[in-house]
Amino acid sequence: MTKQELTEDLRDLVADRRWDEIPSRIEGWPDAALADLLMEVPATDRMLLFRAFPVEVAGEVFAELSGEARDQLLEELTDDETRLVLEKMDADDRTHLLEELPGEVVQRLLNFLSAEELEEARTLLGYPEESVGRLMTPDYVMIQPEWTVRDALDHIRAQGREYETVDVVYIVEEDGTLIDAVGLRRLLMASEGVEIRELVRGPVIYLHATDDREEAVRVMARYDLNVLPVVNERDILLGIVTADDVLDVAEEEATEDFHKMAPIGLMKESFRDAGVALLWRARVGWLLVLVFVNIFSGAGIEYFEDTLAATISLAFFLPLLIDSGGNAGSQAATLMVRALATGEVKVRDWMKLLGKEIFVALMLGVTMAAGVALVAAYRAPEVLIVVSLTMTCIVLVGSLIGTLLPFILTRFGLDPATASAPLITSMADICGVLIYFSIATAILGS
Amino acid sequence: MTKQELTEDLRDLVADRRWDEIPSRIEGWPDAALADLLMEVPATDRMLLFRAFPVEVAGEVFAELSGEARDQLLEELTDDETRLVLEKMDADDRTHLLEELPGEVVQRLLNFLSAEELEEARTLLGYPEESVGRLMTPDYVMIQPEWTVRDALDHIRAQGREYETVDVVYIVEEDGTLIDAVGLRRLLMASEGVEIRELVRGPVIYLHATDDREEAVRVMARYDLNVLPVVNERDILLGIVTADDVLDVAEEEATEDFHKMAPIGLMKESFRDAGVALLWRARVGWLLVLVFVNIFSGAGIEYFEDTLAATISLAFFLPLLIDSGGNAGSQAATLMVRALATGEVKVRDWMKLLGKEIFVALMLGVTMAAGVALVAAYRAPEVLIVVSLTMTCIVLVGSLIGTLLPFILTRFGLDPATASAPLITSMADICGVLIYFSIATAILGS
Repeated sequence: MTKQELTEDLRDLVADRRWDEIPSRIEGWPDAALADLLMEVPATDRMLLFRAFPVEVAGEVFAELSGEARDQLLEELTDDETRLVLEKMDADDRTHLLEELPGEVVQRLLNFLSAEELEEARTLLGYPEESVGRLMTPDYVMIQPEWTVRDALDHIRAQGREYETVDVVYIVEEDGTLIDAVGLRRLLMASEGVEIRELVRGPVIYLHATDDREEAVRVMARYDLNVLPVVNERDILLGIVTADDVLDVAEEEATEDFHKMAPIGLMKESFRDAGVALLWRARVGWLLVLVFVNIFSGAGIEYFEDTLAATISLAFFLPLLIDSGGNAGSQAATLMVRALATGEVKVRDWMKLLGKEIFVALMLGVTMAAGVALVAAYRAPEVLIVVSLTMTCIVLVGSLIGTLLPFILTRFGLDPATASAPLITSMADICGVLIYFSIATAILGS
Repeated sequence: MTKQELTEDLRDLVADRRWDEIPSRIEGWPDAALADLLMEVPATDRMLLFRAFPVEVAGEVFAELSGEARDQLLEELTDDETRLVLEKMDADDRTHLLEELPGEVVQRLLNFLSAEELEEARTLLGYPEESVGRLMTPDYVMIQPEWTVRDALDHIRAQGREYETVDVVYIVEEDGTLIDAVGLRRLLMASEGVEIRELVRGPVIYLHATDDREEAVRVMARYDLNVLPVVNERDILLGIVTADDVLDVAEEEATEDFHKMAPIGLMKESFRDAGVALLWRARVGWLLVLVFVNIFSGAGIEYFEDTLAATISLAFFLPLLIDSGGNAGSQAATLMVRALATGEVKVRDWMKLLGKEIFVALMLGVTMAAGVALVAAYRAPEVLIVVSLTMTCIVLVGSLIGTLLPFILTRFGLDPATASAPLITSMADICGVLIYFSIATAILGS
């Protein structure tokens, strides 16, 4: 069933004010579909519809709402309702919510949590931002090596209903040390009398709570796993992360890298929800930095004023030549930044990649030189040699800047994605101006 | 256990030529870790190590290898070994392999498949490239509504071992129509005598085999699902896609979009494996296109030669002004392209977003104008008004190009990511030259 079919039925119920029929109709619906629907109904109906949801689903639906809809509901909910909604949310969703809200709202919400939930939220929030610890949920099932398969299945039947994931259960020592992960299907297929110990196959792949969350994306993608256990530095099992949360992370991290390439500052809110002031703040910083970088290009042109005045046809080729260096450079940087982000390329590979890039850049430069020579032959034959030679040099220099900058940034502990296309372009522009007019002065005289 | 710890042990065995100990040591290791190891040992040992793997894992490991290592092994394997390796691969991995290899190798490999596997491979390959059909595996468990929970569990125990995923099983009519998906844990917690029909909760979220694979990423991320069923146009269940495959797709699609923004042509091979010639081909096309676009900027400068000659200090501000338009435009385009790719923004929202962008761009333009006025006050007060006014206009125009082009491209059925930063920059450059010199001519006289 598509989302359209899902929502039409419910929208009719809302329009007709048949609130009491809603619980039976939405049984089995995904929380996210209900959240989407909630955001699509008129704001005046939103609270009424939300109150019609059974309390078990209300918390999960709340976690899936956009910032705006969530703020509106939080304002209108009574304290008791707020407590119920928070209680029914999964621990990782609750952490995510608390991360996104302003400090004073978080304080108010923390008051609604039970001592145990408060402990849970505080622990998860204690891990660094963008760490695996923030992603994990403590809702998993542990079994012990001396149990039989029957004991384990009984335990799962008794405990499993309240947990987010029981497709995989974890074998742990009495002190909590992780031994192995075992799929529910393997348990189900084993004889009931067998000891759990015999199902241990070792080695189990795990993450540390302090690992960067991108590590979760890489490990899960590489090892084709749907759930990963998270341990502390003494190998004690702390929680699990599931593929659906990691998929969200992969999308968020890719978006962050896209924005860095643009270059746009970090935006915590989604683009759709972001206000004008936030968008201005995220964008203005880099624009101003780049203005000041470009002053050097201007100074370069001014310095070579006499050369330019002597052969004014050089001006015609100026944008074309210096942009080509920037474009070749931003291609090289993008390939490198993305390959570093996905873990396909390691920093130690830089020498090998530089060697390959020099070849590629030379081939590109010669091709581009041939292209620009055609234009020059028709337009201004007197500068044909100057522009062809300049094109080859500029493409080579731009490509090398684009290849090396991501590695240099990583070396100094910065994110390689800071080597954004506009930064590379501006740097290549400065080199381009100097190369162009130096060659022109040498060949044509000033 | 980290990957390092995993591999050191085995590397010692390879160095000591203790091949017969390998099967017992690698039990339970993830296929991808074994593939990584295989790529790290010297090429001369690779075949020997691969032959030491039990045949059940050899196929899965083969699927995880990089192109280069795979080609080498394919050459050295005997026909019988090739057949065994192919037989042991999961259907979706086999399809992915066949997609990546050159045509003549595919033909040779298809000869090794049984009639049934050949049918499977041909079917999966029959769906459009980048469709959900290519991602799915037919290895899932179906149960029928009239069975009891006990029947279902017995069926799973009998069939489940050979299937990739039995964490979720599918309830289907006798003709194969999908009714619902049910998690193994719900089955396990239900009383054994209950009819499966009573577990149906509907509605089930599914994909069509012809859907774009990005739709799988969106649905899985939005609805927090680890596995999705795939149906044909008559709602007959054809296969399933799992989160780990979708995570790979999300990474691949993001990489493709990054490359488009650079702009770099489609590269089927990974960046690390790509040869010099392939990289040249992927990059040269757009570089040449952009050269010809930049000719218009050159022509613009040439047209206003007299204005430039009369007030040569205008040249100093040229790179800075026109680059600012391009940078503001590529920020706007990146925000839009990414929001369209993740499904956060819909094409129908363009009016609302354009309105917001006009505000943001005006604020950015005024800030930037203040910045450039400071530079001009110090450097060349005679052009202060010209450059400030130009900056505001250029940032506004650049931002509008960046906002609208992705929507226009989508409208004409093109990928919005074609609105790459360099394309936007080049278009903004042309507008920038015209705006700058028109304002200069109007205010300063030519």
